[in-house]
Amino acid sequence: MSDAIVKQIEEQGNEVRRLKGDKSSTEDAKNEAIQKLLALKLAYKEATGQDYAAPNARQSKPKKEEKPKEKKQQQEKKPDGKKQTLLGVGTKKDENYSEWYSEVITKAEMIEYYDVSGCYVLRPWSFAVWEAIQAWFDSGIKKLGVKNCYFPMFVSNAALEREKTHIADFAPEVAWVTRAGQSEMAEPIAIRPTSETVMYPSYKKWVQSHRDLPIKLNQWCNVVRWEFKHPTPFLRTREFLWQEGHTAFANPSDAEKEVFQILDLYAGVYNDLLAIPVVKGRKSEKEKFAGGDFTTTVEAYVACNGRGIQGATSHHLGQNFSKMFDISYEDPAKEGERAFAWQNSWGLSTRTIGAMVMIHGDDKGLILPPRVAAVQVIVVPVGFKTENKEWLFDAVDKVTKDLVAGGIKAEHDLRENYNAGWKFNHWELKGVPIRFEVGPNDLAKNQVTAVIRHNGEKRQMSLDGLSEAVKTLLDEIHDAMYQKVLAQRDSHLKTTTCMEEFKKLLDDKCIILSPFCGLPECEEEIKKASTREDGEGAQMGAKTLCIPLEQPKQELPSKCIFPSCCHAAKAFALFGRSY
Amino acid sequence: MSDAIVKQIEEQGNEVRRLKGDKSSTEDAKNEAIQKLLALKLAYKEATGQDYAAPNARQSKPKKEEKPKEKKQQQEKKPDGKKQTLLGVGTKKDENYSEWYSEVITKAEMIEYYDVSGCYVLRPWSFAVWEAIQAWFDSGIKKLGVKNCYFPMFVSNAALEREKTHIADFAPEVAWVTRAGQSEMAEPIAIRPTSETVMYPSYKKWVQSHRDLPIKLNQWCNVVRWEFKHPTPFLRTREFLWQEGHTAFANPSDAEKEVFQILDLYAGVYNDLLAIPVVKGRKSEKEKFAGGDFTTTVEAYVACNGRGIQGATSHHLGQNFSKMFDISYEDPAKEGERAFAWQNSWGLSTRTIGAMVMIHGDDKGLILPPRVAAVQVIVVPVGFKTENKEWLFDAVDKVTKDLVAGGIKAEHDLRENYNAGWKFNHWELKGVPIRFEVGPNDLAKNQVTAVIRHNGEKRQMSLDGLSEAVKTLLDEIHDAMYQKVLAQRDSHLKTTTCMEEFKKLLDDKCIILSPFCGLPECEEEIKKASTREDGEGAQMGAKTLCIPLEQPKQELPSKCIFPSCCHAAKAFALFGRSY
Repeated sequence: MSDAIVKQIEEQGNEVRRLKGDKSSTEDAKNEAIQKLLALKLAYKEATGQDYAAPNARQSKPKKEEKPKEKKQQQEKKPDGKKQTLLGVGTKKDENYSEWYSEVITKAEMIEYYDVSGCYVLRPWSFAVWEAIQAWFDSGIKKLGVKNCYFPMFVSNAALEREKTHIADFAPEVAWVTRAGQSEMAEPIAIRPTSETVMYPSYKKWVQSHRDLPIKLNQWCNVVRWEFKHPTPFLRTREFLWQEGHTAFANPSDAEKEVFQILDLYAGVYNDLLAIPVVKGRKSEKEKFAGGDFTTTVEAYVACNGRGIQGATSHHLGQNFSKMFDISYEDPAKEGERAFAWQNSWGLSTRTIGAMVMIHGDDKGLILPPRVAAVQVIVVPVGFKTENKEWLFDAVDKVTKDLVAGGIKAEHDLRENYNAGWKFNHWELKGVPIRFEVGPNDLAKNQVTAVIRHNGEKRQMSLDGLSEAVKTLLDEIHDAMYQKVLAQRDSHLKTTTCMEEFKKLLDDKCIILSPFCGLPECEEEIKKASTREDGEGAQMGAKTLCIPLEQPKQELPSKCIFPSCCHAAKAFALFGRSY
Repeated sequence: MSDAIVKQIEEQGNEVRRLKGDKSSTEDAKNEAIQKLLALKLAYKEATGQDYAAPNARQSKPKKEEKPKEKKQQQEKKPDGKKQTLLGVGTKKDENYSEWYSEVITKAEMIEYYDVSGCYVLRPWSFAVWEAIQAWFDSGIKKLGVKNCYFPMFVSNAALEREKTHIADFAPEVAWVTRAGQSEMAEPIAIRPTSETVMYPSYKKWVQSHRDLPIKLNQWCNVVRWEFKHPTPFLRTREFLWQEGHTAFANPSDAEKEVFQILDLYAGVYNDLLAIPVVKGRKSEKEKFAGGDFTTTVEAYVACNGRGIQGATSHHLGQNFSKMFDISYEDPAKEGERAFAWQNSWGLSTRTIGAMVMIHGDDKGLILPPRVAAVQVIVVPVGFKTENKEWLFDAVDKVTKDLVAGGIKAEHDLRENYNAGWKFNHWELKGVPIRFEVGPNDLAKNQVTAVIRHNGEKRQMSLDGLSEAVKTLLDEIHDAMYQKVLAQRDSHLKTTTCMEEFKKLLDDKCIILSPFCGLPECEEEIKKASTREDGEGAQMGAKTLCIPLEQPKQELPSKCIFPSCCHAAKAFALFGRSY
């Protein structure tokens, strides 16, 4: 098997070299050939468990590899001879954010690697973030009258292919079940990459009259997109968790109104829970959800690599799917005619957690925004000796219990096989917003020392009214984290009408507001013109992150930013390199 | 394709007939041949969308079919010419519980049928029951220190096959992904039928020392078991939702203690939420989870067909998996030796909802236990005319809002295109525990009329202190529903030491306590001896539901119930036909 792949890889490699040397070959042809080569290499890796190395390049340079690092961790020894993970993050975020990210998510115990490529274990430390997001968003949509449900994860080919534009987008990434036990299935069955085609045949059945509308359903589930690009935990994974809302209305204005209500909830997840500012906007024609009328999005900015990251999207599907799936009823206004439903779909995924890690983390590790932290306060005993240990541990226990009773997520760390310094590092790495140091001196003054994770600040806090003071402090931390990220972003959010300046700003890790005609061809040209190595070995050009709903105050220039585009600018678009 | 299957079906049919006619053939051989025939027929159905009908038996008798019924429903016409589902349940529960079940779950809008066999849509009306169970159980396990997480749904073949006994149980039902987009995968990847083999390689990594124990994780997820038996919504489906808890301890007593703590929570789901009494017990050697040390279970009784139904299981895995997956650490007690973790796994699935429907429902439809009902009180205006409509609707709205403010799940039905009688039937079919009829006469007396779903009782309730009174009434309803089911069950729970009486009791829809030696071979003999047509066309014998933890007060006879068994009875086992 792997021999056959090796041969294909070699042939495809030759083809890529030929295209690169041939001045008449188009960028598209080259890109396509490169993508195919990468896919073959991934297939090789899946078949053999090893990266493909060209015969003349074997061991020429170390590969970026996740697994070996993990092994390295396991080989670290504790002083007592037992294995443990190496404490602290070995890589600086500024120097190699990709390495840094891998280290943080594993050492903070958010992610465990897994033996199916592109799939990762979400450990309790990261899953708690997801649970906090779920609780908040679920309560928000229920107030809008949305109800939860569960549709099957399997899709028949017939249903999947019903909407052509839509499936063209997903077909290359669909995973197919073809065998059950020892039996080959008569018809392969797909695993949902998203559930439009799963749900809408039911919607057709349920809609017999305008009185059956609106339908407002949501499900929390897993979906599978078998991408062949390099996977990254949370940010690009083959299976991920999300919610997907699917609603249908009798008129377009109700549908459109909901698109923006949901977008506001998505902005709330970022602003109010994750302490991350986002830009609300519409996607360009090129970037919108295939088969929908328009897509709205919340976009965040990742300072360490200057990239934009799509936070969540809320789509207005118009009548496109309702016509394909015949979600219709007798039009009460026009006798004898069918009226088709107006539909939306909207989704938020575990990618949120990856954005949170990238945006807030620092060289010490993870920084958890207080409202999604599994532990908001970690209480650590300090300065104890054998003679006062029991007394001190009781005091630590009491402080912790009082906080918990006050509604704070507090835990203590009374382990005796680690010293206080080790614990400080450990909980900083894990990103707990507040550390309480509880020692005899502070207790004598009826106080504890609070150390704030995100800025390292120390302050004494009285034991009287502690829970209320901690709640206030958690809000203060949330706001400060938000403001810090906002300032970072705003200092990298530039406006220009000049393509040369645009490229320079892009290389300076900026996201850029520029006048844009909105045409997909022109967006493609801008992408090509701004493409260069991104330092990770990948080619990356700018694309539109969104057309911000709130446009810059300055007047819109008449011309699109792309010099050879002769169309009028329709709006300022936000451009950037992007996840 | 289907021609090939037809040929195979015909050949296998001949083989089954040959075996049935051949007195020297064993029951096992016959059963195996029949199972293979059924699997082929299912494959035919999946390939063609139609049931297989033998050439000489076409249209000989109407097939039990789900889809046509659904079509029938859609063809019903409303008086105004619009399509609607037929109101009311057309089949009596006593006459044909299987037909009745299909009607109730579709007409009560719990289930929508789906075009992948064995998969069903959980609509909000049933999913709300699952959400109530999730909230209660999740809070219960968190108090025990269990944390939620998420592991991938895909399993590599290598991991899946690690534990042989375990995988022997699941292999025939595993769904395999072999293709992504257009590419065949080098190695097929399985979809989890349960997650022992998914999780335990990570547990191995995480356990380096006894200090890394206990590990207590749970996930709420979907699993796939591609069964070839006839599927039934909720009760036997190819994809289902469940929680699976997986814990690991340094010593067996902590592990065993947890097995029973979880079992108590499972009993709580049935007793305290679903108003269903259950028997707690251990599974026999034959029925226990493969690869585990022992399995505990909660078993409910379904009166309409006299069957037992397994409610949820909590397994003690002993060290079997930890040895296979090397979840071990240096033994602090014995230098140089490895100690292996003691493990449990435990699961509760959406089958709970099916049990609830079967056990509580009546000829009018579903009956929801109050604590899992999406709507606990439906408020319906009655006796209104044009002149007082606005005033009355306002009163209905106020009553509803007051209930909601008081923490009751209340809704009103102010639709004007349905009369009150239609609404009564509709909400009875959907099983809402309490209906409020709000009309001018009652309002004049500062009261409303409450109609209780499960017993049809009417009572007047004062508008003063209504929410508190409703809360009390909901608890009263819960208790009454529980007591009713308990009485039904206890009148069918018999004890015997005589095999002939055993068989008679079984046919009288009883579950039976009998002395039992515990040996798998003997259980097999008892099953064979008690096998007969169950009225559904299937062969069904008795198996042990469990060995009840609470044994009958009477003295255990010395001998096992099976006449030719010469082993001593170990305990009273609870036998029955079973789901």
